[in-house]
Amino acid sequence: MIEYPAAADTPLSQLPFSPCTKVGSLIFVSGQASVDATGAIVSDTFEGEMRRSIHNLQLILEAAGSSLTHVVQTRNYVHDPANLSVFNQVYRELFSAPYPARTTITQCLTEALKFEIECIAVIK
Amino acid sequence: MIEYPAAADTPLSQLPFSPCTKVGSLIFVSGQASVDATGAIVSDTFEGEMRRSIHNLQLILEAAGSSLTHVVQTRNYVHDPANLSVFNQVYRELFSAPYPARTTITQCLTEALKFEIECIAVIK
Amino acid sequence: MIEYPAAADTPLSQLPFSPCTKVGSLIFVSGQASVDATGAIVSDTFEGEMRRSIHNLQLILEAAGSSLTHVVQTRNYVHDPANLSVFNQVYRELFSAPYPARTTITQCLTEALKFEIECIAVIK
Repeated sequence: MIEYPAAADTPLSQLPFSPCTKVGSLIFVSGQASVDATGAIVSDTFEGEMRRSIHNLQLILEAAGSSLTHVVQTRNYVHDPANLSVFNQVYRELFSAPYPARTTITQCLTEALKFEIECIAVIK
Repeated sequence: MIEYPAAADTPLSQLPFSPCTKVGSLIFVSGQASVDATGAIVSDTFEGEMRRSIHNLQLILEAAGSSLTHVVQTRNYVHDPANLSVFNQVYRELFSAPYPARTTITQCLTEALKFEIECIAVIK
Repeated sequence: MIEYPAAADTPLSQLPFSPCTKVGSLIFVSGQASVDATGAIVSDTFEGEMRRSIHNLQLILEAAGSSLTHVVQTRNYVHDPANLSVFNQVYRELFSAPYPARTTITQCLTEALKFEIECIAVIK
């Protein structure tokens, strides 16, 4: 009943989780960080990490038959609250109105990461 | 397939998210804080912020055809752990048994907020 | 429309939440910590707390007609990032591939806890 969609170009996970799971028309995507195709962390500016994380989210959604415009809810982890204004600016660019439901919290990532995003989406 | 319920009396969002999204019978509500009808933060005691946040949650749920008694799961952000006992006391008053599933974490809000709550609910 | 499955051997909750809620085929489990059958916190090593928390999660899932292999998504709270490698090692032992979607955050539990886990699952 649970499906595990994945595609050749989604980042490999080096840790014990699937990129996403699918139940009926709902898709649950794991927390996405700034990692390359092998799953290794790519340190970058906050904006660079955020764009790479959401690019990875998009690859996973598309491999699962969904897209950024089919996202129902996002949960966002912005480690340094000083980056919240850049976060909102880039978010407006990458998502479009009407926006998903959203929660954003801070200061709960490990030192290695500046940003992480997870979501629940529906299929196209 | 995703609906974006809203009503005249739900707080305006100044940020890129919808108050809630609806998919089938499920409603996903964005993190609610102590904001007024224009979306501006209202600083208050912990209890005041908690009551205003849950009042906002209730307005959004009712505009979407749900209610506090139709909440399936809440996720609560209590910034200062010293407020956890007040949190549980007020929570018992505003929700009623049998209670929703719940998770509560601490120390991950920005300085401007003492409390935030998000939920998944079903329609009436 | 919301069901509240529970069984004699699931830990009692001393706080205002249900062990889990069920809507259709989806089960939403409350954040599980290292507590005994009466709901009292059992302090232990990180690994001991993690194993007890996931044991509690399993009891709740089984009382609701689900199991650890029917988990769609987990959200994990590892208070001290120094425990992340033990976390991944024990996680690989207790869950099995293909793994659920997952998000892990840190430093957001109260002093009393080293680990907490919540999940969304489907019925068998």
